Amino acid sequence: MIRVSSLLLCLLFTVVVHASFKVEKQRFSMAEFTTLGGQTIKQLEVGWEAYGTLNAAKDNVVLITHYFTGNSHAAGYYSDTDPQPGYWDAIIGPGKAIDTNKYYVVSVDSLANLGVGDPNVITTGPASLNPATGEHYGLTFPVVTIRDFVNVQQALLSSLGITKLHAVVGPSMGSMQAIDWALAYPDWVPRVISVIGTAQSDPWTTALLERWAIPIRLDPNWNNGNYYNATPPTEGLTYALMFITQDALTPEFFAQMGASKAVRHAPLEEAPLADINASHRIVQWLHQRAAARAAMFDANHLLYLVRACQLFIAGHTDDLRTSLKRLDAKTLWLPAEDDFLLLPELAKSAHQQVQESGKSSELHMLSGAMGHLEGVAGIAQHADTIQQFLAN
Amino acid sequence: MIRVSSLLLCLLFTVVVHASFKVEKQRFSMAEFTTLGGQTIKQLEVGWEAYGTLNAAKDNVVLITHYFTGNSHAAGYYSDTDPQPGYWDAIIGPGKAIDTNKYYVVSVDSLANLGVGDPNVITTGPASLNPATGEHYGLTFPVVTIRDFVNVQQALLSSLGITKLHAVVGPSMGSMQAIDWALAYPDWVPRVISVIGTAQSDPWTTALLERWAIPIRLDPNWNNGNYYNATPPTEGLTYALMFITQDALTPEFFAQMGASKAVRHAPLEEAPLADINASHRIVQWLHQRAAARAAMFDANHLLYLVRACQLFIAGHTDDLRTSLKRLDAKTLWLPAEDDFLLLPELAKSAHQQVQESGKSSELHMLSGAMGHLEGVAGIAQHADTIQQFLAN
Repeated sequence: MIRVSSLLLCLLFTVVVHASFKVEKQRFSMAEFTTLGGQTIKQLEVGWEAYGTLNAAKDNVVLITHYFTGNSHAAGYYSDTDPQPGYWDAIIGPGKAIDTNKYYVVSVDSLANLGVGDPNVITTGPASLNPATGEHYGLTFPVVTIRDFVNVQQALLSSLGITKLHAVVGPSMGSMQAIDWALAYPDWVPRVISVIGTAQSDPWTTALLERWAIPIRLDPNWNNGNYYNATPPTEGLTYALMFITQDALTPEFFAQMGASKAVRHAPLEEAPLADINASHRIVQWLHQRAAARAAMFDANHLLYLVRACQLFIAGHTDDLRTSLKRLDAKTLWLPAEDDFLLLPELAKSAHQQVQESGKSSELHMLSGAMGHLEGVAGIAQHADTIQQFLAN
Repeated sequence: MIRVSSLLLCLLFTVVVHASFKVEKQRFSMAEFTTLGGQTIKQLEVGWEAYGTLNAAKDNVVLITHYFTGNSHAAGYYSDTDPQPGYWDAIIGPGKAIDTNKYYVVSVDSLANLGVGDPNVITTGPASLNPATGEHYGLTFPVVTIRDFVNVQQALLSSLGITKLHAVVGPSMGSMQAIDWALAYPDWVPRVISVIGTAQSDPWTTALLERWAIPIRLDPNWNNGNYYNATPPTEGLTYALMFITQDALTPEFFAQMGASKAVRHAPLEEAPLADINASHRIVQWLHQRAAARAAMFDANHLLYLVRACQLFIAGHTDDLRTSLKRLDAKTLWLPAEDDFLLLPELAKSAHQQVQESGKSSELHMLSGAMGHLEGVAGIAQHADTIQQFLAN
């Protein structure tokens, strides 16, 4: 209860003038990029951020790979009046677990990033203009994969003269990128931290992810992805985001919300009993929250991120065990106990397979009522674990 | 693996001439019925079935209350060539756990039953003609509740001269009816068996149920419920049924499906990599299964059943603990270990509250890869528990 209240207070009311470090979004461009599926994207652009200083040997780089609804803003503030820092500010910064006095911390916006309406996101995806036609790509944009995100990041790092990483660390969809990095570029990656992660999309996860795409495809405004000069499928996108929010939280969290004055849940509410079109307050709360986020996000981009995650298997081979046998990096797995989205069994199974192939693997559980989201908002509970893993 | 294969074989190929008992659907009518919300339904009709013989004292009645996608066909066959029996045939019949040599077993189709297109379902709901207008009700049909299902059942039993039950037994949505019976008609109900059940819809469950309604509401053919003289929202209904199927199963079950020849799942499938509109095979499997079921079901009815379940709290009061303190019936709870729909914690919590108020309550777990569905397809694993509970 205290946890949830603090989170809400933080989300709703915190406008603090703070002394933490400032960051700015930078832009990385590629004239041409070839996807894993063999398609070409011209004039690709993504945003990126860095915290700390690249050393002379250029070997102190920690790459942070972001989650599904996130972007490269992993830490710091954009301005003195920025209401909140990057999502992992609790563990990234001077003297923190991922210590910017030691490490040069880099993070990159994904392709098809959701935050098309966020002024601090730079991404290339279906909402972008196709330079060949001058029109928005829509569904003519090629399917992109976790491997493509990795390859774009590698191109960016290479452009900085970097040839090796100290570690790749990411939560959720970021965990997919982290483990895939170690298989795509084994010489680069000695350490991987997979937070609330998985080493592949099993059938359950593939079907669960499909649920996020369905409301968008059903919204008549979606129009097979052609809505950039018309009304966007905001309703479908809002429902998709409602699903994501619930999947990323827990019954315990919802019970706390439902017991709060603002959201108070009683099954036998008057309005839903009187009117089939009325909603329970807990549903209204989810809807309002999702609608606010939908304003910043693009519906087609959500479909493409769903597909990237569905297609994910570490190493992008056809067999996970074979992939994991090839893994040389040390791995640290931090699944969350009450994760309803990427079930902790997924990380446990990967950890076990890595150990069985004689490699070093460590696993610790995150806990708390936020479930999957403990890997973002509750990551500080394993700050020491992360710090020690990076030091060895 | 053996379990799943057998189930599939059973679902797909079994056409058996069998010696088990025959049943037929009967019809119960009420000139007028008043809902919990105070609305009137005229010329209400529901179907019902009975197995066994009502004794002279009319005190050997076991009422079976059905689950969300089910109906009153709980046991037996309609004909010699009927491919499968009622859903709980494994525990209902001569010499079985709910022994029709002893008990007169009655089951009743719910109001707003999904199976509008099923010739063996008789129900009154939004798809029915409103006798006042001669038009389909659509959303003018009043919101109905679990209590309304109970009241219709009670009226039917009363019409047979029955004034007392031996037990009420039901899975899932049926478990809601079973426990509500004991609070609505305490003099009637000495025993309640709640299978894969809950004593109320907590905020999580309310939001989870809302997901089933969303695809229907998004389908343009839904047209605010007015589709009876037009194309029905089959696509939205199909997606709703996909969600229900996944919620009622488990990652383990999906893994077994994904490993089968017919459904073989590999994340990196060719078609989904090449085409954003292609689907993974596990998604196709879910869709095909759901589309077949959608042909028999009505979309508005699904919305009304969702609402009935969302509004459920045992006793239909505003506080569960107060309700459960009034409970006089002995209760047996049979939640499923890997239930992702009605989490086993819900039944455990209700069981604990009943015990804390000094009443008799028993709890045993169902287990197996079918998760929630173990309460339907796997119920035989607790046949003895049920038999013993009914005998005492």
